[in-house]
Amino acid sequence: MASFVQYPADHPFPIQNLPYGVFSTDGVASTRPGVAIGDFILDLDAVSRSEWFVDAGVEAEVFQKGTLDPLVASSPESWPLVRAFITRLLSPTSPLKANARAYLVPRETATMHLPITIGDYTDYYASYEHAYNCGVLIRGPENAIQPNWKHLPVAYHGRASSVVVSGTPFHRPTGQILDKVGDKQPIFAPCRRLDYELELAFIYGGAPTKLGSRLSPSEARKHIFGYTLMNDWSARDIQTWEYVPLGPFLSKNFCTTISPWIVSPEALEPFKTKQYDHDPKLLPYLDDPEGFGFDVPLTIEIKTPESGAYAHVSTSNTQHTYYTFAQMLAHHSATGCPLRPSDMLGSGTLSAPRPDGLGSLLERSKMGREPFELDASRKDMTFLRDGDSVKFSAVVKAPGGWSVGFGECEGTVLPAVPFEG
Amino acid sequence: MASFVQYPADHPFPIQNLPYGVFSTDGVASTRPGVAIGDFILDLDAVSRSEWFVDAGVEAEVFQKGTLDPLVASSPESWPLVRAFITRLLSPTSPLKANARAYLVPRETATMHLPITIGDYTDYYASYEHAYNCGVLIRGPENAIQPNWKHLPVAYHGRASSVVVSGTPFHRPTGQILDKVGDKQPIFAPCRRLDYELELAFIYGGAPTKLGSRLSPSEARKHIFGYTLMNDWSARDIQTWEYVPLGPFLSKNFCTTISPWIVSPEALEPFKTKQYDHDPKLLPYLDDPEGFGFDVPLTIEIKTPESGAYAHVSTSNTQHTYYTFAQMLAHHSATGCPLRPSDMLGSGTLSAPRPDGLGSLLERSKMGREPFELDASRKDMTFLRDGDSVKFSAVVKAPGGWSVGFGECEGTVLPAVPFEG
Repeated sequence: MASFVQYPADHPFPIQNLPYGVFSTDGVASTRPGVAIGDFILDLDAVSRSEWFVDAGVEAEVFQKGTLDPLVASSPESWPLVRAFITRLLSPTSPLKANARAYLVPRETATMHLPITIGDYTDYYASYEHAYNCGVLIRGPENAIQPNWKHLPVAYHGRASSVVVSGTPFHRPTGQILDKVGDKQPIFAPCRRLDYELELAFIYGGAPTKLGSRLSPSEARKHIFGYTLMNDWSARDIQTWEYVPLGPFLSKNFCTTISPWIVSPEALEPFKTKQYDHDPKLLPYLDDPEGFGFDVPLTIEIKTPESGAYAHVSTSNTQHTYYTFAQMLAHHSATGCPLRPSDMLGSGTLSAPRPDGLGSLLERSKMGREPFELDASRKDMTFLRDGDSVKFSAVVKAPGGWSVGFGECEGTVLPAVPFEG
Repeated sequence: MASFVQYPADHPFPIQNLPYGVFSTDGVASTRPGVAIGDFILDLDAVSRSEWFVDAGVEAEVFQKGTLDPLVASSPESWPLVRAFITRLLSPTSPLKANARAYLVPRETATMHLPITIGDYTDYYASYEHAYNCGVLIRGPENAIQPNWKHLPVAYHGRASSVVVSGTPFHRPTGQILDKVGDKQPIFAPCRRLDYELELAFIYGGAPTKLGSRLSPSEARKHIFGYTLMNDWSARDIQTWEYVPLGPFLSKNFCTTISPWIVSPEALEPFKTKQYDHDPKLLPYLDDPEGFGFDVPLTIEIKTPESGAYAHVSTSNTQHTYYTFAQMLAHHSATGCPLRPSDMLGSGTLSAPRPDGLGSLLERSKMGREPFELDASRKDMTFLRDGDSVKFSAVVKAPGGWSVGFGECEGTVLPAVPFEG
């Protein structure tokens, strides 16, 4: 399958990918939904107002509200129709070819925005390797995995208001920490253990569920609109002090970054892989015999202000969730919690079972006890310093020869805001 | 101060109260914001479209969107102006008096709705007595209060999608629980320890804060739009199993009920009381020398299906928060988390230091170990059974002779939804 838009064979945004995003351009006040194709963005708002908008699977106004929310809220049955429509529109025989300039925006001229208006945001803890690594660091290998972990996808509610799009810098958080281990009196000081967490987020779409209703994994899977890269920036020292007994709060809600592109389940079909074996067996409400993972490598790079160039840190993989995404959603609805379109759910840190596959600095530096060499500019890396940038990316090659990319999830640490008390 | 609307001297909604809500009436599709006055609701949407809408402090369209969100998002400086306008409109000399039928809706004919579109919802754990009681039950009196508790208002992010208005029934949640203490394999079964939590919620209003910005308690206080009663229904057995290490999740997100009326800080002025002494001293970012609590009694009643009448269980008080509401908000912003208008924040269970002042059944029944007599129909009360209703209410008499009521926060437990797996 080809497109009239030209791009190299290994381009992350070929016609087989078609990730959704929201963009704006200079001189136009409003944001518009679009689809990445090669080095361009197909302007879906413009398309929806054109004569080419025929058999699109949804009404034109779905693309005229400035966000992807109306598409996400549309029936899941419509999503493949919209994808087929866009594929036709970008095919070599498309009538759009002669009018491409009116509908295709060079990506380098666009500013990307949060693609959806996140209602509720939930974060899981679903990577066995990450849970095991953290458990070993905190409790030792004997008790690394806690009793509930292999029975349910542990999760907490996150903060939707602090989710930002890739490229948004944020200040090092200031909060209550213990100056020395064993102190009883905390201090209010800039975080000293600022970390990232490599995650894959997914978006709930379609009709909301009602209070008290429950989805099976196979029902839940149909509601997954797409996937995006996520960095759940974490303040480890603030977390250690605050999280007893109700879980992380300020240590997680100062910034969460997502990539601007949402990759559809259909684009990820070629990368399906076997799900984890579950021993002990999961309870029947989590039964997901058709469940699968995705084999998509995820890379982490860090750029120090001294070097100015990204250095590779880890390569993990989206397949490292012990629970399928459908099981995570099914569990979420088990007690009757309503799910609403544009809810976002994070996988939790995705660590691979290799020293060079760890999804956080906590694991990589063994809680800061084992500094490592990032590059010539940072030979004693433990946690993030001011000016450091972190970039997650994912590009995977399909058996058919094309590549599928997720775009980038990037952020830079600004100095803490001084406290003038 | 009197109104042309007639009501008894001890009515919970006199002209000194004026709580805001959102209502609908038969035959009218849309919801409208209103203010309770005696047994009526002043229809603010209708008023905003009338010739009487003069010097109201905000534009007319603020009342024409079907929710209170635009008013909550308006400048805090405008709120007293709106209140003064409504007070004039309801005064004995008001021109509205001759046209009252067009603007006053009998409350008994109205259906109440969620007053705001909650963005993010945060729940604190701010009552010393509740934290102490729970600590004693779980860890014994020596270690009842955990090391961080007296230094920061412990909190977690809750689920906005499961917040409902008073009167909404909900199904007993089904989730993972341990059949017997010490079991390693959980079962998926209806909750056996369904509880309520008596809370006061407050609403953030005014301009959103930016990522990275921080509010002092005195700045934060200006952003409190108002207060409402809240029941943070809790599944204790689901919570015990799931909450390690990231806090409560499904045990809290199956239903959270709020009363339909939002009481303004001005209506609560007569009930200000001294804040708690803080020993150890709080860190400077939480300094709130002008801080205060409110002395408002809160009552809990339960109605069993066998009796059909409410029986009194507890009387607590809104003053039982160790931290002021302004301190809770200031803490929330400490690391730079954005606060947005219509965010809701709960106090945590409010228990008074008296056996008849406990805010949860967990405390009242000592984790179910000490059943108590509710009434003739339930001599062995521990946790909630199917068909039980719980009602929170609050009416307080001001020194000036009038009363201020919060309305009711009520819900009924329906049987669990069967699992057909």
